[in-house]
Amino acid sequence: MTDQPLSLAATLARDLLRCPSVTPAEGGALALLDERLTAAGFSVERMVFSDHGTPDVENLFATIGTKGPNLAFAGHTDVVPAGDAGAWRHGPFDGSIEDGILHGRGAVDMKGGIAAFAAAAIAYVADKGDALDGRISFLITGDEEGPAINGTVKLLEWAAERSHTFDACIVGEPTNPAQLGDAIKVGRRGSLSGIVTVTGVQGHVAYPHLAKNPVSDMLALLARLDALVLDAGNERFQPSNLEITTVDVGNTAFNVIPRKAVANFNIRFNDTWSVDSLKAHLRDALAGVEGLACDWQLDFTSDSSDSFLTHDAELIDALADAVEAETGRRPELSTGGGTSDARFIKNYCPVVEFGLVGQTMHQVDERVPLAELDGLAAIYLRFLESYFAG
Amino acid sequence: MTDQPLSLAATLARDLLRCPSVTPAEGGALALLDERLTAAGFSVERMVFSDHGTPDVENLFATIGTKGPNLAFAGHTDVVPAGDAGAWRHGPFDGSIEDGILHGRGAVDMKGGIAAFAAAAIAYVADKGDALDGRISFLITGDEEGPAINGTVKLLEWAAERSHTFDACIVGEPTNPAQLGDAIKVGRRGSLSGIVTVTGVQGHVAYPHLAKNPVSDMLALLARLDALVLDAGNERFQPSNLEITTVDVGNTAFNVIPRKAVANFNIRFNDTWSVDSLKAHLRDALAGVEGLACDWQLDFTSDSSDSFLTHDAELIDALADAVEAETGRRPELSTGGGTSDARFIKNYCPVVEFGLVGQTMHQVDERVPLAELDGLAAIYLRFLESYFAG
Repeated sequence: MTDQPLSLAATLARDLLRCPSVTPAEGGALALLDERLTAAGFSVERMVFSDHGTPDVENLFATIGTKGPNLAFAGHTDVVPAGDAGAWRHGPFDGSIEDGILHGRGAVDMKGGIAAFAAAAIAYVADKGDALDGRISFLITGDEEGPAINGTVKLLEWAAERSHTFDACIVGEPTNPAQLGDAIKVGRRGSLSGIVTVTGVQGHVAYPHLAKNPVSDMLALLARLDALVLDAGNERFQPSNLEITTVDVGNTAFNVIPRKAVANFNIRFNDTWSVDSLKAHLRDALAGVEGLACDWQLDFTSDSSDSFLTHDAELIDALADAVEAETGRRPELSTGGGTSDARFIKNYCPVVEFGLVGQTMHQVDERVPLAELDGLAAIYLRFLESYFAG
Repeated sequence: MTDQPLSLAATLARDLLRCPSVTPAEGGALALLDERLTAAGFSVERMVFSDHGTPDVENLFATIGTKGPNLAFAGHTDVVPAGDAGAWRHGPFDGSIEDGILHGRGAVDMKGGIAAFAAAAIAYVADKGDALDGRISFLITGDEEGPAINGTVKLLEWAAERSHTFDACIVGEPTNPAQLGDAIKVGRRGSLSGIVTVTGVQGHVAYPHLAKNPVSDMLALLARLDALVLDAGNERFQPSNLEITTVDVGNTAFNVIPRKAVANFNIRFNDTWSVDSLKAHLRDALAGVEGLACDWQLDFTSDSSDSFLTHDAELIDALADAVEAETGRRPELSTGGGTSDARFIKNYCPVVEFGLVGQTMHQVDERVPLAELDGLAAIYLRFLESYFAG
């Protein structure tokens, strides 16, 4: 432990970590944020969104200011489960601080990011007082790690219905691979998931002429998928990539030729493709596989998303400048990694992502150095000053 | 129903079908056989064999005669389960006869075969009386459809320990694809089962460079196995054939690259190969697959068996002649189809297989025309006369 008093960012992060807000539980996290932002002068609203077959989820919208551009900060207070809590050095919801490091589920993904931005916004608003020449809004959901149905999508619709418009948005997800300042995300690849089903004729292995083994055809279809070179990438994006995530037959009998085989795959793709062009390409590729004996079909799941790239140079430069000023490093403008709620926000306003270092996210002993929390808060504060001055 | 009195073969088959002897249950079937054979003058012994981790199973040995060659008949009274009993036209253990057809589980596989041979042997022995110039033995197990551990293997060892030797053996499995007289089995292909395991590194699909997808390597390994042309067969045997019976990963998450993939395969192989030469060939084939990123291994199950071919022309001709005399068709000398307990018996004496028509075996409404039962009994009787005269 340290004798130094904790910063506002560290205090807020620690208190948020103590809220057991595993999706879809609110766990006290939004109530805490409500209280702190209300105290700082924000107008806060909390709403529960529902949908058939999914748990109800709490969300929060906060805003301050009446004139000038509206900068939104988007994030989630829900976290993935702790897994084996006994394997943690500190209780995953204890908010323990040891040797200047704050431990707990959500430390970097992304209660720490929310705490840093809230600390920066509170400081900025307090500093400006009545001279505040802009608007700051929080879009905070409890459904990012879950189905993402009762979260950011509905929060954005809710805000639009109430005539809240945003000029830019920062998502506070952990974007840095190794060190604070490594990377700003200025876009995301798209995602498409598919299912290949091959149906043959069951039989005895001793009489293969009376059966049709779906595994042989599945091998041919998957070999075609696995060998696809979709593109070489470009200056904005990595090459598109397909991974076969499972193949299953479930036949335990060595003397039985099975009837059916099922395989799943997922593609992370760049702006060379759209969901539709990629689906057509895959259908063509599999239709070109010759010599198949069984019936087969290709289906796609409903949660696909297109890639996007943010072109707002002013926004990107202001954030990159703030990062460089605080860390001494010019951040890479990245489009790699997984998807985030930015894929929904980009339909409303330019969006960029910057947060903590992602190394321990979703792992046992997720943690963040307090110095990084304060460093991120300083970057956000510098960005707010620059953005509203700009 | 018919007004004609049932033959001995039909009576015995019907009574055996009424014994619910699903492996490993004796169900009264061996007791019935014991009673009928004892009444006919056979010396009958029944023994229970046991082994670690398997159910105890009852077996039966019967013999008659003191001089001349010893002809063994091998079979099993255990049957596979009825499955959905409600789907049967007649109760699977009712022994119902309708329009000259006997219905029930085991009708052709192979209580009917046992009944036909027992009827023939009883008639032959009664006819010869004290002039019996040969020996007839029954090797009947209750563990053919199950693990086959407490059955024929131990029964043969038990007999050898008691100095019972056999000059030839007929197995009464259903060998005819369509009509009585189609085929005698004079050998069987070997069987070898293998397991391919590929172990990679789990990860997120958005970060494939941090993971190693075992599915890609599994596809390459299985494609090699699936493309193997082991041989073209020969005048004695079909070509050897490999079937991949399952591939399993069990990963339900579309955004996760899995850690492990497992596949099973089975090979039915001819006398071009031995178990050992085939294992070596498979190891070489997979070792030659290039560009693999993951760890993989090839294992084999312990229940492999070599092929065999019976060369005793006198035995084969006597049986083929009897079949032709009764059916008007010269039977094909076949080595196709699945394995049977003949794979164990061939280590003790020349063995051939001939029984009923297999079409309904293991199915709902397994059944046999009484005329076929009587036809098979007539073939067996003719063979006994020829064999012991020869």
